[in-house]
Amino acid sequence: MDAGERPRAAVVVTGSELLTGVISDSNGPWLATELAGLGFELAHLLLVGDRADDLAAALRFAADAGAELLITSGGLGPTADDLTAQVVADFAGLELEFDEQVHATIAAIVAGWSARTGFSGPSVDAATRKQSMVPRGAVVLPPVGTAPGLVVPTAGGPLVVVLPGPPRELRGSWPSALATAPMQALLARVPRAESRSLHFFGLPESEIAESLREVGAALDLTALEVTTCQRHSELEVDIRARPGAEETAEALVDELVGRHRRQLLSTDGARTDELVARALLASGLTVATGESCTGGMLASRLVDRAGSSAYVAGGVVAYTNEAKTALLGVPADMIVAHGAVSPQVARALADGARERLGADIGVGITGVAGPGGGTEAKPVGTVSLCVSTGDGQVIARDVRLPGSRADIRERSTDLAMYLILRAAGGLPTP
Amino acid sequence: MDAGERPRAAVVVTGSELLTGVISDSNGPWLATELAGLGFELAHLLLVGDRADDLAAALRFAADAGAELLITSGGLGPTADDLTAQVVADFAGLELEFDEQVHATIAAIVAGWSARTGFSGPSVDAATRKQSMVPRGAVVLPPVGTAPGLVVPTAGGPLVVVLPGPPRELRGSWPSALATAPMQALLARVPRAESRSLHFFGLPESEIAESLREVGAALDLTALEVTTCQRHSELEVDIRARPGAEETAEALVDELVGRHRRQLLSTDGARTDELVARALLASGLTVATGESCTGGMLASRLVDRAGSSAYVAGGVVAYTNEAKTALLGVPADMIVAHGAVSPQVARALADGARERLGADIGVGITGVAGPGGGTEAKPVGTVSLCVSTGDGQVIARDVRLPGSRADIRERSTDLAMYLILRAAGGLPTP
Repeated sequence: MDAGERPRAAVVVTGSELLTGVISDSNGPWLATELAGLGFELAHLLLVGDRADDLAAALRFAADAGAELLITSGGLGPTADDLTAQVVADFAGLELEFDEQVHATIAAIVAGWSARTGFSGPSVDAATRKQSMVPRGAVVLPPVGTAPGLVVPTAGGPLVVVLPGPPRELRGSWPSALATAPMQALLARVPRAESRSLHFFGLPESEIAESLREVGAALDLTALEVTTCQRHSELEVDIRARPGAEETAEALVDELVGRHRRQLLSTDGARTDELVARALLASGLTVATGESCTGGMLASRLVDRAGSSAYVAGGVVAYTNEAKTALLGVPADMIVAHGAVSPQVARALADGARERLGADIGVGITGVAGPGGGTEAKPVGTVSLCVSTGDGQVIARDVRLPGSRADIRERSTDLAMYLILRAAGGLPTP
Repeated sequence: MDAGERPRAAVVVTGSELLTGVISDSNGPWLATELAGLGFELAHLLLVGDRADDLAAALRFAADAGAELLITSGGLGPTADDLTAQVVADFAGLELEFDEQVHATIAAIVAGWSARTGFSGPSVDAATRKQSMVPRGAVVLPPVGTAPGLVVPTAGGPLVVVLPGPPRELRGSWPSALATAPMQALLARVPRAESRSLHFFGLPESEIAESLREVGAALDLTALEVTTCQRHSELEVDIRARPGAEETAEALVDELVGRHRRQLLSTDGARTDELVARALLASGLTVATGESCTGGMLASRLVDRAGSSAYVAGGVVAYTNEAKTALLGVPADMIVAHGAVSPQVARALADGARERLGADIGVGITGVAGPGGGTEAKPVGTVSLCVSTGDGQVIARDVRLPGSRADIRERSTDLAMYLILRAAGGLPTP
């Protein structure tokens, strides 16, 4: 690795279920964040089925592409398609051998589990034995579930960290993997990563592209890695500087903030949800929701964070007109006059939620999420949102959102979070 | 490819934001499902950053691993880090050239967008020109957003399908990609995939592993590909037969169903959520939710499906004690006597939701999602659930769930969905 270059890493996630669309991988993105934070450049994230040849090929590919650190996830379980320990041993040129001490550790964990659940017998014994096979010379991590992770040095090749697939076990094993001697030796060679992350709301990616072109004409940006990512209305711009280019990164940050200040959410990497939590905690305000088309998605987003009970009063999912009237006091004749999807009803949902739940901020959302239910005047994607506060502030939006039912519900929730942020005074001053 | 073998495919998803953990990829899993349905064997799913060398290496790796179909997602956008068309052209040995007709199509789309949003100018023109560069000989797909997808035949190599990264555009482009002549020629060679999918609730993966070992002693399962996937309490077992092995697959299905009938959810691939929707639609029953720790997650799950207004009355997120009492009639002295997290309060939440929202089935959930709020008697993970019906049926569960705050909320929601399924008579008869 050249001076100033970040060492490359690769992640190989195993599991045939990931390749039939049965389940989405969450370990890859989680490890990606960790590796970026440590200063590695993640070159490839590979998902492979539970086939020894394909896993072996993936390991070789990642090593050939220059990875100095190779992390695998999954394939340590009790079934015959759990092959990772064997394949990694072959890759590293090491014997796989039965480890008495590991076996004793797993057996003790399994005994406790059997006592609680009543499961035991030969299937459990075979699983325990299988999970006690370890490549010779590997560092065995303390198990979080039953399958222990491994740190496997390879002669002249990458360091291989073998982690279990269940996300809770993978995340729980990560700190002990970092603490091992081979990993510490590798980390000592990683230059500190300088990274800045800007978030904007309602700014098209093409505008940032144009700004980057213009700034790039005056400033040499070649020592920076700039990535942009649009997620519905939120745009994230990540700027990573190689060592020595930190000042250029700061200059670019200043330029982008100056040019797009009106759409700026944050300069410290915080997304809308984080900013909403901060603003509500700082102001001491509480929030209540009255949702129709989003059906609880907004309340659930608000409750996602630990400590949200400090600022979430609760909410009502008023999916039917009767529920809107009975639980949130939306006048039945208002629904008849303007329709359930209307700015008037959004306002009444916001006010009703705020008053009935005794909150400072009320949010109302009503819309046509589709695929059915659209009319010429109010096609699928028509959504009315309103945020009202106890001191008389009202922020309303009436929009037509594109995409599927899921898209429309998610975009509505995003926009509602942004409006809460505005009402709670959590936006940077322009 | 040998007779009876499924042709291999690979998916290469580009985007540096996927490798810093900024965003999770949803295109890979979606394409995985599509490819499995068409009868391909997805060998690898690779995520690579927006670096030409890494993308090129990924394409070569997938081709070397025997992929006859190679699908890329992303990198067709307006910014300089959008490199896919160039890299695929190089991979296929084709010139990249400006396409007048594509340019006219994109310009017309962009003009409409500019008129609506007010954005225009040189940044938009440059983006349009960049997105009009096409490898010579490629089939250009009708654009769903602005960037058109491509189907690129390579001499003696895999067929490359280049799709845009935004999920809506990728999914929208897929049918036209399938309809192209080169894709139709490839599909004509794909043997029909026979696949069966069993779902169980509350069955540990090690028990299925043991059943597979036992059945495998009597029955030759080598022509089957069996994958198991545990997602919280739900276990999916997928059985794919090579042509000729369909009867073996059926025999295995019968064995597994017979051995684990009590935990069986479905034999047709349906998951809990799908079964709940079916059972509620078939019975004409409606459901209402009273949620504390899950905070709207259950309501949102129920509303996920199109047509859910037929059976979802609505719900209340009663996060505070005051909300539980005011909106769902939970007696304040009951909360004092038993605590907000108690079977009594779960029952009162279920009854209150059912009565206040006029539904047939009420669901109550109250628990300690953590990380704070746990006590010795009721540690983090303690959750009480109750489903009550208008005709006097009551199903209650008091559990201690493992994992993080997000895990506990999701597992609680899973269990609630299962209890609704049971109450609505949607489980197979044992």
